[in-house]
Amino acid sequence: MFRNAMRALVTGGAGFIGSHLIDELVDAGYEVKIIDNLSSGDLNLISHQTEAGNVEFVKGDLTVLDDVMQATKNIDCVFHMAANPDIRLGTQITDTDLKQGTIATYNILESMRVNGVKKIVFASSSVVYGEDAPMPTPESHGPCLPISLYGASKLGSEGLITSWVGTFDFQAWIFRFANIIGERGTHGVIFDFIHKLKRDNSRLEVLGNGLQEKSYMEVKDCVKAMMHIYNSKNSPINLYNLGSHDTCSVRRIAEIVVEETGFDNATIEYTGGDRGWAGDIPRAMLSIEKMLSTGYDVNYNSEAAVRHTTRCLIEEIGM
Amino acid sequence: MFRNAMRALVTGGAGFIGSHLIDELVDAGYEVKIIDNLSSGDLNLISHQTEAGNVEFVKGDLTVLDDVMQATKNIDCVFHMAANPDIRLGTQITDTDLKQGTIATYNILESMRVNGVKKIVFASSSVVYGEDAPMPTPESHGPCLPISLYGASKLGSEGLITSWVGTFDFQAWIFRFANIIGERGTHGVIFDFIHKLKRDNSRLEVLGNGLQEKSYMEVKDCVKAMMHIYNSKNSPINLYNLGSHDTCSVRRIAEIVVEETGFDNATIEYTGGDRGWAGDIPRAMLSIEKMLSTGYDVNYNSEAAVRHTTRCLIEEIGM
Repeated sequence: MFRNAMRALVTGGAGFIGSHLIDELVDAGYEVKIIDNLSSGDLNLISHQTEAGNVEFVKGDLTVLDDVMQATKNIDCVFHMAANPDIRLGTQITDTDLKQGTIATYNILESMRVNGVKKIVFASSSVVYGEDAPMPTPESHGPCLPISLYGASKLGSEGLITSWVGTFDFQAWIFRFANIIGERGTHGVIFDFIHKLKRDNSRLEVLGNGLQEKSYMEVKDCVKAMMHIYNSKNSPINLYNLGSHDTCSVRRIAEIVVEETGFDNATIEYTGGDRGWAGDIPRAMLSIEKMLSTGYDVNYNSEAAVRHTTRCLIEEIGM
Repeated sequence: MFRNAMRALVTGGAGFIGSHLIDELVDAGYEVKIIDNLSSGDLNLISHQTEAGNVEFVKGDLTVLDDVMQATKNIDCVFHMAANPDIRLGTQITDTDLKQGTIATYNILESMRVNGVKKIVFASSSVVYGEDAPMPTPESHGPCLPISLYGASKLGSEGLITSWVGTFDFQAWIFRFANIIGERGTHGVIFDFIHKLKRDNSRLEVLGNGLQEKSYMEVKDCVKAMMHIYNSKNSPINLYNLGSHDTCSVRRIAEIVVEETGFDNATIEYTGGDRGWAGDIPRAMLSIEKMLSTGYDVNYNSEAAVRHTTRCLIEEIGM
């Protein structure tokens, strides 16, 4: 493959999905540099690569243009995975997603332009579609009306990226992720449930009525799909939903977590309401026809990914 | 109408479209406040209203949160019209649209949230669709892949607005404008052509091959459509294309301008290429079915709007 031995910069490379992407890139022979501010990333997630000397780690902040300008020197492709992972935070602090999302993406694109780097792979999200989209939602759905500030920052970043493609001859791979779960998870519903049960194994409080239902994708499926499409698709803009074939309800996730933790006597309690918080999307399922058409298919569907993740996280967190 | 005697803030109210919107709002009985940094706006465009004491003018910068926080106090609805009007600028200076577009919109939304203002009307643009959209382009087209930095800032602003609707119970009217032209124009192709002929009436240089073809809407049609839909549609998010029924080519615009200026001997020269600059969209036409379904129709189609505008601007600029 001509892209092997290329130099990749992974933003948020010490984060959940970023750390798995790094494993893929190292396996594929890339020289890998990581920039991460360790706000939610963790060096332990990549110690197996840093200690083996396989990757270069730079602690840096994407909201600081100078940091990004340095990091993007002598790079062939930027894999932009960094983001504020806490979607709920936008209901309390309104500038986090703007700064760590949209403005960070601007800093990356501008630094790439100055340094002559023209390829960007971007971790976008299904939440750009908003809540009135048909299910499963195809990439061609419009208009995109995100309801969370996190979603707004992903849509804003997509627009910045395509404008750099149109104006400065960049090439982009944009992936709209379903809910990505798996080993090394640092946030999200399964992570939260396990921590709640660890604190109090007699009850599990679930935000909303439990009928929220979303599509889950296992993290290794996700990064393998990214690399497959990055290696096989070569349009100026390559935009793909990444997800699995079905959905899993929050109620079912709660049951699985209770089952796997062995706290069979825990009562599952619902706070009520159709969603976990303002800006949460109750039901989401991506159309993955376009991804499947590239020849990639997932190893896990939603429920299997949830069970696999629950087992991994119980082991990592320790009960 | 219950909305009469409401207090409106118009950002960019001393600009081209903003000044016409102010006339509509004053006529409809609104108390009108204007915030404008006069970077491209001009007090002369609204002197008929300021001198009559019909509107309050505040010189302020939307990139400065304090200015916006002050301006949005005691307001019922913000009409957010301000933007960097020079789309081409993004090819040279990459942070203008980010700051004066996306970040300005964030400052407005955040100030509104703090001040308890929940209604926003936003001037978005057809350029959010990018260049591969079917023509005429409906609001439901996706994905939106803007190719100019200006377009990215409009898409980013739309996302911010819908996220404030979803997270903080705002209500929004988002209008994706065709090319708006007319009296008091301060930029754009007709304005440029007249100035070129004024400098040298023997020739008119046209960027591109002249085959660029877009839909034009007369500015009073535009602001009347905005007010009609604002007054008659009441969903949480009301998103409408605004345009006319047809298109006009740049070649035809050049002919009309030469004709109307009376410089019949001017030769029209084309620089060649399919577009005026990187990030320019060669062909654009919006579907206006949704606008028409509200009962509003335009008075001018594209060529008539071009000729009317040419006559107005020749008079304003003076040959």
